[in-house]
Amino acid sequence: MQIARVLGTVTSTQKEPSLRGIKFLVLQLIDDDGRPMSGYEVAADSVGAGVDEWVLVSHGSAARQVPGSEQRPVDAAVVAIIDTVSIENRLLYSKRDQY
Amino acid sequence: MQIARVLGTVTSTQKEPSLRGIKFLVLQLIDDDGRPMSGYEVAADSVGAGVDEWVLVSHGSAARQVPGSEQRPVDAAVVAIIDTVSIENRLLYSKRDQY
Amino acid sequence: MQIARVLGTVTSTQKEPSLRGIKFLVLQLIDDDGRPMSGYEVAADSVGAGVDEWVLVSHGSAARQVPGSEQRPVDAAVVAIIDTVSIENRLLYSKRDQY
Amino acid sequence: MQIARVLGTVTSTQKEPSLRGIKFLVLQLIDDDGRPMSGYEVAADSVGAGVDEWVLVSHGSAARQVPGSEQRPVDAAVVAIIDTVSIENRLLYSKRDQY
Amino acid sequence: MQIARVLGTVTSTQKEPSLRGIKFLVLQLIDDDGRPMSGYEVAADSVGAGVDEWVLVSHGSAARQVPGSEQRPVDAAVVAIIDTVSIENRLLYSKRDQY
Repeated sequence: MQIARVLGTVTSTQKEPSLRGIKFLVLQLIDDDGRPMSGYEVAADSVGAGVDEWVLVSHGSAARQVPGSEQRPVDAAVVAIIDTVSIENRLLYSKRDQY
Repeated sequence: MQIARVLGTVTSTQKEPSLRGIKFLVLQLIDDDGRPMSGYEVAADSVGAGVDEWVLVSHGSAARQVPGSEQRPVDAAVVAIIDTVSIENRLLYSKRDQY
Repeated sequence: MQIARVLGTVTSTQKEPSLRGIKFLVLQLIDDDGRPMSGYEVAADSVGAGVDEWVLVSHGSAARQVPGSEQRPVDAAVVAIIDTVSIENRLLYSKRDQY
Repeated sequence: MQIARVLGTVTSTQKEPSLRGIKFLVLQLIDDDGRPMSGYEVAADSVGAGVDEWVLVSHGSAARQVPGSEQRPVDAAVVAIIDTVSIENRLLYSKRDQY
Repeated sequence: MQIARVLGTVTSTQKEPSLRGIKFLVLQLIDDDGRPMSGYEVAADSVGAGVDEWVLVSHGSAARQVPGSEQRPVDAAVVAIIDTVSIENRLLYSKRDQY
């Protein structure tokens, strides 16, 4: 999985019918110093993540291991909203500190 | 998923029989500032996307989660035509503005 | 899928038994200006592609969606010989012009 | 698989229900000279790896070939704690030497 | 598939039980001029490859299409020992010439 920050959203009317009702988030990948990396990802959201939150994103067939998404053509999914990231016993990120 | 713009098409007569009738689009990946990225992708189209439209492309086994494509040897598929992309509450792209 | 040109072949005697009879092609990936990209791929061929032809190559589990290859340990397959590539309404490649 | 060193942990309360009880490790990939590579990975742990240990990490659908994880949306898993890495008959790493 | 040279081995005692008895090889990827590329791979071996031999390595779910490995958490496997690599009708590598 990768650590990412929610940047925004993508909307679409004309799409695969199985994608109706899916929320698409634009994610910015975060490196292990907490800095934004180049590149982004569009992922299906099933955990209710909002803009600026840090999340875990799973890629590939893992993105379909979410109840109801088994046969959806998605290759990335937000699977968790992150509470804390600790690196070398140092707290890199804490959701509580953001609010 | 990645955001991409439809650049063109690929045609082929001699191919895996299961690929007959599939439209192959050449896609240019778009970064989160709306600029073209280096690299491209050839993807199967099932949503009727046309040249210059912005689309969502799914890679890997997700590309076969489209009715009728379950057993086709495709590793990328256009799964949605994008209406809007919003980044940090700013509208990066709107299909309506293009026409 | 990626566009590639057939560069050569790989032969092997000592291999997974399920790979007997499979032709392995060395492919050079081609960018969307028709220029060779760095990097290469070895792919199973099921469409009879020859050296210098432009082909479509599928990666990952898609490579096993070819009759007879469902249980072969291949992660790339040539699935089509390309007739034409059109980019922005310009003909980038035409097989007919090569001969 | 890649060789990685355990850097830290990620915690999350709000997540896919199937991820409850999974320990998420932050991993730093190691190159074949034993040096840290740029980039990191968050992986599910099933072997009880601790900070600073060298491990093998598997990506993609392989990460779900762990008893109990078959239907979890994880795309990376620590599958082994490394005892030794030998390169060109030289011992690059030995777990025993670390303690 | 990629062409690689066998560099060394990884050993592990504490691992997923399904990985017992699997030999892990450290592989150096080789480019299409026969030169070592940066980066490496750890792959399960099922064909008895030895140090310095050139092999074909398959990634992803293909690595589990080897009898007995269907449910092992491996994402790369050596599937063939290479006899020859021919590029543009030139013999880039011949196993026979190495001994």
